[in-house]
Amino acid sequence: MSIIVQKYGGTSVGSIDKIKAVAERIIQRKLKGDDVVVVVSAMGKTTDLLIGMAKEISPNPNKRELDMLVSTGEQVSIALLAMALHEKGYDSVSLTGFQAGIKTEGAHTKNRITDIDIKNVKKHLKEGRIVVVAGFQGINESGDITTLGRGGSDTTAVALAARLKCRCEIYTDVEGVYSVDPRLYPNAHKLNSICYEEMMEMASLGAGVMETRAVEIGCKYNVPIYVAISHGAAQGTIIKEYDDTMEGKAITGLTVSDNVLMVTVNNVENRLKNIAIIFDRLAKHNVNIDMISQTAPFEGHINVSFTASMEDEYTIADITKELKKEMPNIKVCTDSSISKISVVGIGMMKQSGVAARVFNIFADNDIEFKQVTTSEISISYTVAAKDKQKAVMAIAKELEL
Amino acid sequence: MSIIVQKYGGTSVGSIDKIKAVAERIIQRKLKGDDVVVVVSAMGKTTDLLIGMAKEISPNPNKRELDMLVSTGEQVSIALLAMALHEKGYDSVSLTGFQAGIKTEGAHTKNRITDIDIKNVKKHLKEGRIVVVAGFQGINESGDITTLGRGGSDTTAVALAARLKCRCEIYTDVEGVYSVDPRLYPNAHKLNSICYEEMMEMASLGAGVMETRAVEIGCKYNVPIYVAISHGAAQGTIIKEYDDTMEGKAITGLTVSDNVLMVTVNNVENRLKNIAIIFDRLAKHNVNIDMISQTAPFEGHINVSFTASMEDEYTIADITKELKKEMPNIKVCTDSSISKISVVGIGMMKQSGVAARVFNIFADNDIEFKQVTTSEISISYTVAAKDKQKAVMAIAKELEL
Repeated sequence: MSIIVQKYGGTSVGSIDKIKAVAERIIQRKLKGDDVVVVVSAMGKTTDLLIGMAKEISPNPNKRELDMLVSTGEQVSIALLAMALHEKGYDSVSLTGFQAGIKTEGAHTKNRITDIDIKNVKKHLKEGRIVVVAGFQGINESGDITTLGRGGSDTTAVALAARLKCRCEIYTDVEGVYSVDPRLYPNAHKLNSICYEEMMEMASLGAGVMETRAVEIGCKYNVPIYVAISHGAAQGTIIKEYDDTMEGKAITGLTVSDNVLMVTVNNVENRLKNIAIIFDRLAKHNVNIDMISQTAPFEGHINVSFTASMEDEYTIADITKELKKEMPNIKVCTDSSISKISVVGIGMMKQSGVAARVFNIFADNDIEFKQVTTSEISISYTVAAKDKQKAVMAIAKELEL
Repeated sequence: MSIIVQKYGGTSVGSIDKIKAVAERIIQRKLKGDDVVVVVSAMGKTTDLLIGMAKEISPNPNKRELDMLVSTGEQVSIALLAMALHEKGYDSVSLTGFQAGIKTEGAHTKNRITDIDIKNVKKHLKEGRIVVVAGFQGINESGDITTLGRGGSDTTAVALAARLKCRCEIYTDVEGVYSVDPRLYPNAHKLNSICYEEMMEMASLGAGVMETRAVEIGCKYNVPIYVAISHGAAQGTIIKEYDDTMEGKAITGLTVSDNVLMVTVNNVENRLKNIAIIFDRLAKHNVNIDMISQTAPFEGHINVSFTASMEDEYTIADITKELKKEMPNIKVCTDSSISKISVVGIGMMKQSGVAARVFNIFADNDIEFKQVTTSEISISYTVAAKDKQKAVMAIAKELEL
């Protein structure tokens, strides 16, 4: 008999009927002889509704209280799911983050799990119960209720599986991990397996199926993560350590991010200090910079471009106003009609020439790219948003994704 | 500088605007120099909505999980109220039952407070914060979230005031404690003060303004309880120890309970054992019996009547079916068109003749009463529901309530 952690997202528990269906699935698994720990998110749009109430009180609500507020969403789902399991005759117990021993640290609304005191979960499993744990939440050293930010419930599930030394199953509203988002490339194929490194890279480059941090924990503690659809029987994708049985292709997947702002600062006087000032100011305002490119100096001036998240648009506008006071000659252009296309594959470490192949695809299809960056297992290109679909189709077809 | 506990009920925090108004009231109090602890209930109909969801899953939901579910209601209100206080520039912190150290024991959905570890509340007060505590909830020895049942938030507030050795203010949707429910007797007057014993008796006999248990705690720890309307400035009622400055009338108030079922068992063979069997069976099924009256034996048979709560109607029907198997000759009649009218006053302990005065009022107004019982400070009569209004008007007028 082994332990299994299952996670069901907000859509999967979005109504009373769906909660009953999830209970039925859990029972089927229990009947196979496994001890089951279930992590659930808040029902459907609950979190948004709660945040909406907070915004009626304050445009910028106190973050400790926001955590206190939104954590009720998961508490409602765990109670209802445990009731549904009881109603079907199975002993069950729901546990909030603090009851499940999930300890966190960091800033409210984006805490990180530091440890899990697994005692209480194990006690209930030993007594034969199905344990239902609230995702997305924990408790900090001061005893305050905290939340984990985006993808928090996945993180809870994988961290619990790491502590229980077992497999983690993430049930969601898609059938698994695809080589390319099927909405962009209908011929995309579902991957049977993908290694942690590739999944992290894809997640951080825009693949929505799982958050990077949950995969990171899986990688660190070697937790096999199975991603599949919650209502249905289709085979999903397993995320695990790289091994030779995995496909030998250089490229495993392609991701697209539309949330990109490209900023170009023209006519900067060519002094090292000036470039440093620009990026220093951005860093001080917590603007995360992604790609940077810089032209060679011409007549004593240089141009520098960088990409950032659209969310920082207004912050960047404020910063450029400041900068113009110190460097009155600079000209700043921003372009939000930008998409970033990335190809990801651990095979790239062994196979060279991937960048060249993609450059050729761009050339053959008359697509102009603006910037390019590479990591060990990925290459990213920014293109005009209007060229996104064409570029995705061409690359996915050529690389047989 | 003193500490004050204020409690706001569900109607008082029923919308975002009302929460903002409550925050304003709290700040006014804080500005007077007091340290303020606020206890709040769930917003408006939240608890009913949550119970409705549970009932969709099970007609008889698991009670531990029901506590887990409904306790989210107060968690939402405390977070929103603390945010509203922050928004107005006042440092504030919300605490769930477990964070406020409220320890309980008993059956889920109707726990009792056993102790309060006041450390955390005191720490936050010392650091200058307004402390907002979730009413109605606590934590038991197993670390499960519990709720306190009817009137639970009042109980939380009075128990906190007992531990903090301070006054407790209950803000609600009525202006205070009235001698008679003004909906039944428009000339009823609001009491400036009432002693604990009278208030407990009135609460247990049907006065809705406060629950008996909260007043009991107030009495035990001598907590002055002030009951007043939450949105307005009208003077309320203080509940305190009896003293000679209180009104010297025999009768302080009149209460009415409509939730009464009268059961008459006719033709019981006159053996002591038989009466014992009947009440034994009722006790085993947790039916609370209120008034009992028994006729003298006639031809070897007796008739016995008792009143119980309407909620036990179906349980009592089941029990009488059982009893008929053992005593085939009995005839059982139930009457649910019954009201219980009680007059309450600590002055009754010194002044005699109150029962006689009320009997006369009934006689003068041609009202038949079915049963009568007395306690040290109250006398209760059951009358036909159709006579209720007439009886209330006559008694209230004669006794100048």
